[in-house]
Amino acid sequence: MTDHDPLLEPLSPAMAHLGVEMTAWSTDFARFEADIAPFMANRSGIPHGGIYAAMLDTAMGYSGAYTGDKHDLRMTLTLSLTVNYLSRPKGARLIAEGRRVGGGAKTFFTEGRLLDETGEWIATGVGTFKVRS
Amino acid sequence: MTDHDPLLEPLSPAMAHLGVEMTAWSTDFARFEADIAPFMANRSGIPHGGIYAAMLDTAMGYSGAYTGDKHDLRMTLTLSLTVNYLSRPKGARLIAEGRRVGGGAKTFFTEGRLLDETGEWIATGVGTFKVRS
Amino acid sequence: MTDHDPLLEPLSPAMAHLGVEMTAWSTDFARFEADIAPFMANRSGIPHGGIYAAMLDTAMGYSGAYTGDKHDLRMTLTLSLTVNYLSRPKGARLIAEGRRVGGGAKTFFTEGRLLDETGEWIATGVGTFKVRS
Amino acid sequence: MTDHDPLLEPLSPAMAHLGVEMTAWSTDFARFEADIAPFMANRSGIPHGGIYAAMLDTAMGYSGAYTGDKHDLRMTLTLSLTVNYLSRPKGARLIAEGRRVGGGAKTFFTEGRLLDETGEWIATGVGTFKVRS
Repeated sequence: MTDHDPLLEPLSPAMAHLGVEMTAWSTDFARFEADIAPFMANRSGIPHGGIYAAMLDTAMGYSGAYTGDKHDLRMTLTLSLTVNYLSRPKGARLIAEGRRVGGGAKTFFTEGRLLDETGEWIATGVGTFKVRS
Repeated sequence: MTDHDPLLEPLSPAMAHLGVEMTAWSTDFARFEADIAPFMANRSGIPHGGIYAAMLDTAMGYSGAYTGDKHDLRMTLTLSLTVNYLSRPKGARLIAEGRRVGGGAKTFFTEGRLLDETGEWIATGVGTFKVRS
Repeated sequence: MTDHDPLLEPLSPAMAHLGVEMTAWSTDFARFEADIAPFMANRSGIPHGGIYAAMLDTAMGYSGAYTGDKHDLRMTLTLSLTVNYLSRPKGARLIAEGRRVGGGAKTFFTEGRLLDETGEWIATGVGTFKVRS
Repeated sequence: MTDHDPLLEPLSPAMAHLGVEMTAWSTDFARFEADIAPFMANRSGIPHGGIYAAMLDTAMGYSGAYTGDKHDLRMTLTLSLTVNYLSRPKGARLIAEGRRVGGGAKTFFTEGRLLDETGEWIATGVGTFKVRS
């Protein structure tokens, strides 16, 4: 675990298992990235859509969870997640960004995009989340 | 790779990495299961919603991919996936079922449910898929 | 407004404008129906997908709103709605059913199906709703 | 029917019935608008979420249907539509914009936003569409 802002907490076991790391986190925004790895492959030999869903869910959930204070963690629950699969990667790294776009203290709404490092737009997502009290 | 029906092909690397195995596959139906494992945990300590999404995506995609002939594989692409998160597991094993509910030769529609072995209903999904030619 | 159970309240203006009527309402379930009408047509001359979305949203929202007491109305807000479009009608009447499948006092989850009177399955939906306090 | 570019075809009956008009249409983009009217009200007295869904479905579908030639109409079918409901209108007019963000000749992907004239962001959507051949 690094301790510098804005990465205020360690990776979850699930993200570590998928080789995903956080690269940005601030109010209403989060970015997670991962190198494409052999273990990500689906039966067609390209990254499994579930990996994209997991990265988008994470990026969108964190986008509504930033407090800037590692002693005041805001936990969130996904209510609904939709992912649309636009294209396949041309590059070697997956980059998922989530943005909080609305909502209030208890429920929030997000948009997410997953690209690769060449700028290829691979998937888009929307999510609805609850803030755990 | 085992060769017995109805499990006609090896697990994808992504499913193997997540500890997910296929337990049923037939026309318009597929089931995948996984023991809940520490590496699945999100920052709240419960299985990451992305794991459920990956299992539902897989079960729903395979539900429209069955041919019964391991020399005639039907490959599918997810176009759109929606997952709603109803509850958290009470048990120790995740069970995702997908059903093809409509569509034609090129595009198909599915419903999916993720439960645990106690019958707790954890997530529900719908998906739209394309058959790769 | 009729007063007989289970139709405990008048149609909303939006449903009246679309020619939609409630035909069943009970705990965790609601059904709405409409005759296919010329004003429903999209640019292809078949019922507009937005009509299906409106009927499914309504049926799913009401499925979590039943109290059985017309003096104790439970109002709901849609958080997220997904509709998949399976087929076009073969018949003359649209029938949308919604079922509450999970959730708690403040948030609930639903599934919906839209068929016609011939049994043709036209659309499927999932929704996440909030109970207004 | 007016004949000026970019509004190359008449409104569908469904859009006319909802008081919705097209205000912009070009490659990969479409905008539809409607004054909030009493007939749009749901049981809570605010515009029915199905109206937003219908407008977003329309705007997103048209965003992938522009040819610029009224003698060469491109027809589309919605495969999947997701709408998230962020807020209620503060103004008097609904403005739905759709953008095609990916896909190919047969299938395309879109994002949509519904705002009012005060800039209040009311709903967001994503859609997957098929081009009819």
